[in-house]
Amino acid sequence: MSVIINLSIFPMDKGESVSSYVARAVNIIKESGLQYNFGPMGTSIEGEWDEVMEVVNRCFEDLKKDCNRIYLNMNADYRKGAPGRIKSKVTSVEKKI
Amino acid sequence: MSVIINLSIFPMDKGESVSSYVARAVNIIKESGLQYNFGPMGTSIEGEWDEVMEVVNRCFEDLKKDCNRIYLNMNADYRKGAPGRIKSKVTSVEKKI
Amino acid sequence: MSVIINLSIFPMDKGESVSSYVARAVNIIKESGLQYNFGPMGTSIEGEWDEVMEVVNRCFEDLKKDCNRIYLNMNADYRKGAPGRIKSKVTSVEKKI
Amino acid sequence: MSVIINLSIFPMDKGESVSSYVARAVNIIKESGLQYNFGPMGTSIEGEWDEVMEVVNRCFEDLKKDCNRIYLNMNADYRKGAPGRIKSKVTSVEKKI
Repeated sequence: MSVIINLSIFPMDKGESVSSYVARAVNIIKESGLQYNFGPMGTSIEGEWDEVMEVVNRCFEDLKKDCNRIYLNMNADYRKGAPGRIKSKVTSVEKKI
Repeated sequence: MSVIINLSIFPMDKGESVSSYVARAVNIIKESGLQYNFGPMGTSIEGEWDEVMEVVNRCFEDLKKDCNRIYLNMNADYRKGAPGRIKSKVTSVEKKI
Repeated sequence: MSVIINLSIFPMDKGESVSSYVARAVNIIKESGLQYNFGPMGTSIEGEWDEVMEVVNRCFEDLKKDCNRIYLNMNADYRKGAPGRIKSKVTSVEKKI
Repeated sequence: MSVIINLSIFPMDKGESVSSYVARAVNIIKESGLQYNFGPMGTSIEGEWDEVMEVVNRCFEDLKKDCNRIYLNMNADYRKGAPGRIKSKVTSVEKKI
């Protein structure tokens, strides 16, 4: 439980409204059972590296079915021996502001 | 109110714990008066392009005072004539999941 | 000369081919006189923070004229007292591989 | 050969100089046999989705051995039926500038 990623994925060939494609990715994330946090600029997901990357794969493979061009942005933050960080990272900063 | 960015900024020369530096950036964002959403992998900020970039500048200039190396990641999503998106983007997807 | 960014900017409402819009951004970068390195996933630009951000602004304002939705991704790496890094960063790694 | 990613990966707990860690990742990319382009802000890699992600996994697992905190940024651009894009994307824009 030591990696958090922020994932943003959308088609570039479907015009300016892409929320139905984003919803498909968020559904896949939800069904994974991993902890996640859906926000205006992507979805943060926490888990083991392999678990999280498996979810990224599934999102990509799903959009690939009917999209000709896909853009994906992902940031990952790994910290050894630090589970539950999707909440504790936020709390740790909030204590200081 | 038509740009949303996700901003992540931290020093690379201060060791593995950087939450006190992140807190300084979040404070600057907070004091800007712009709508924001603080999450585990960055802070989303909504406003006019110039307003939002001014906040990014302030965060960078603040960390520059005492950090030798700084990493910054920013994604921006601009949509014409679409205010209040920091909430509506989330709602629009949630209706579909 | 101590910041390098990698900038990727493109419209989301112009269909799957966006190279003419990317070319407009690269032209603006070129005309800035700053050191740059154009690659398959964005353009790296080196300069003072204010100079570099001014170029980012100009790219955004230019696409805004005729694009309804724009996505921008930017990474920045600042290092105190380290000019000419757009070349030296590459050389420093190449010596080690 | 239809995905290009830009990968940036580095430790956050090793101080301000990280080029020896970046070199390890670039070596792994090199040994994969995939087309790549090493630049000042990351390495672009082209291949099938699974091939490229396998290289990302290997880079992460390698740094994980001796780093307590790792940051990774990745952008991916997939386009159906478009091989050889690590060169053609650059050429296509260069013709227009």
